[in-house]
Amino acid sequence: MKIRVLGAAAGGGFPQWNCNHPNSRRARDGDPAAAPRTQSSITVSADGAHWFLFNASPDLRQQINANSILHPKNSPRHSPIQGVVLTNADVDHVTGLLTLRESQPLVIYATGRVLGVLGANSIFNVLNPELVQRRPITLEQPFELGGPEGYRSGLTVKPFAVPGKVALWLEDATKGPNFGSVEEDTIALEVSGPAGGPRFYYIPGCAEMTSALAERIRGADLIFFDGTLWVDDEMIRDGVGIKTGKRMGHLSVSGEDGTMAALRELGIKRRIFIHINTTNPILLDDSAERKAVNEAGWEVAYDGMAINLD
Amino acid sequence: MKIRVLGAAAGGGFPQWNCNHPNSRRARDGDPAAAPRTQSSITVSADGAHWFLFNASPDLRQQINANSILHPKNSPRHSPIQGVVLTNADVDHVTGLLTLRESQPLVIYATGRVLGVLGANSIFNVLNPELVQRRPITLEQPFELGGPEGYRSGLTVKPFAVPGKVALWLEDATKGPNFGSVEEDTIALEVSGPAGGPRFYYIPGCAEMTSALAERIRGADLIFFDGTLWVDDEMIRDGVGIKTGKRMGHLSVSGEDGTMAALRELGIKRRIFIHINTTNPILLDDSAERKAVNEAGWEVAYDGMAINLD
Repeated sequence: MKIRVLGAAAGGGFPQWNCNHPNSRRARDGDPAAAPRTQSSITVSADGAHWFLFNASPDLRQQINANSILHPKNSPRHSPIQGVVLTNADVDHVTGLLTLRESQPLVIYATGRVLGVLGANSIFNVLNPELVQRRPITLEQPFELGGPEGYRSGLTVKPFAVPGKVALWLEDATKGPNFGSVEEDTIALEVSGPAGGPRFYYIPGCAEMTSALAERIRGADLIFFDGTLWVDDEMIRDGVGIKTGKRMGHLSVSGEDGTMAALRELGIKRRIFIHINTTNPILLDDSAERKAVNEAGWEVAYDGMAINLD
Repeated sequence: MKIRVLGAAAGGGFPQWNCNHPNSRRARDGDPAAAPRTQSSITVSADGAHWFLFNASPDLRQQINANSILHPKNSPRHSPIQGVVLTNADVDHVTGLLTLRESQPLVIYATGRVLGVLGANSIFNVLNPELVQRRPITLEQPFELGGPEGYRSGLTVKPFAVPGKVALWLEDATKGPNFGSVEEDTIALEVSGPAGGPRFYYIPGCAEMTSALAERIRGADLIFFDGTLWVDDEMIRDGVGIKTGKRMGHLSVSGEDGTMAALRELGIKRRIFIHINTTNPILLDDSAERKAVNEAGWEVAYDGMAINLD
């Protein structure tokens, strides 16, 4: 199984367009210890020729240009991209679908809830429905990643709900403290190869580590996990926002209740933070926080990070 | 008046993600005579500090990163971008609005028709309506470009209809040969400084040169004009599409009925092609077609092209 990180940053990217926080400024100024990162997405392949995107970030065109594995191989029109699996309807996860126009056959995999959101926004009709299939996926029901023209990857994906929140732009304040979120709004993905092969998890957004989630991911070969914030009140403290991580549906990296602590004893072979907000000091190669996550056995994803999982 | 070309290519950009036409391949391979171009947009300023985007391309985040004039100047959050003027609801003209989130005050200027399209697609609600004003503009009614917090540019924009077609994703085949297009669907912009100052036109899509349009633009200081295709059947001939330029609402550059011929005698001081499709040979510095447009007095826009108009 081959995995490539297309983008490692949270919504807005690193640097973020209107953010002059010192982190964004260092990235903008070309500081070698603050490598820019586009918005979060990975791509997965069994054979290195057919690839599936996990989420379609607004930076997808730039990400395709930057990764030759996704360049067309045949003339006049072609793409190694067979499909996209969506974990929610966040702007930073669905906007890239609008880049995948130009009459290219594809499969979009998403929950009924997320497909409903796409259906209610006619701009996504730019993906020609005669060529781009929308296949509903169901929580806890494994499916094989397949292409629009019969390609079968042999890779199995099992979608499952994680604690989270409906996308910001779909929040309904009249529907109580969770803004009308339902179970299907935020999902994570378990990916496994043929029997006995490797198994990894893609969890770019998660609000809480439950015991059920901990048991599920125990012993995995690899996990990509929500690395949005270092501490819950980071955006407020740094004067760039008014929301806590909890309010946005994200567990923090540090602290007693944080991700590092929660995943310490689960025997996961490789742990990588992804979906990292521009304010999070783990983005900086020279920060104490980066040193702390590395010492705890975690890596920090970067654009172009390539992983072979066998 | 200061103008910066943020992106010079038509929808899909150059190279286009799934296109293996020799032009896209040369751009992808780093050929110095085939400089990559992002999707079409320009930004305009009176003072060099406050900028207005003309259209918001899907590549906007990359375009902001590449142009320091658009970087935040103050901490913690700031942007020189005061607003966006939309010429239609094409995916390559509106998708970038989704990049302008993160609670930044802005003004969106568009016709009632285009605002209606944004209103019908709830994903654009990610632009907080308390901070991002949507100001309707009316054909032939000049307005001053102004910011969300009282900034006044002194620049006047007059929107006017040009022959065109409704955005691809809004086409309604049941509504006859023009797919339900109305006058407001495709507009162009006349921009002028204080009385006696310069005047330029931004016309990234135009299906036909009418005598009324010719008279309007006669004697202008500068025009940016639709450079989508070299010849009308270029995409069919090159095997990358099934539509003619006319079908897509674009006049071609060359030929007796083409743009170069139509604008030859209008006394326009500076003429620049923009919104150039990946198949158009004028994108290549070493092509005969580039030589021909240059000899006819035209320039070919490129990303980062800077113009001072005084």
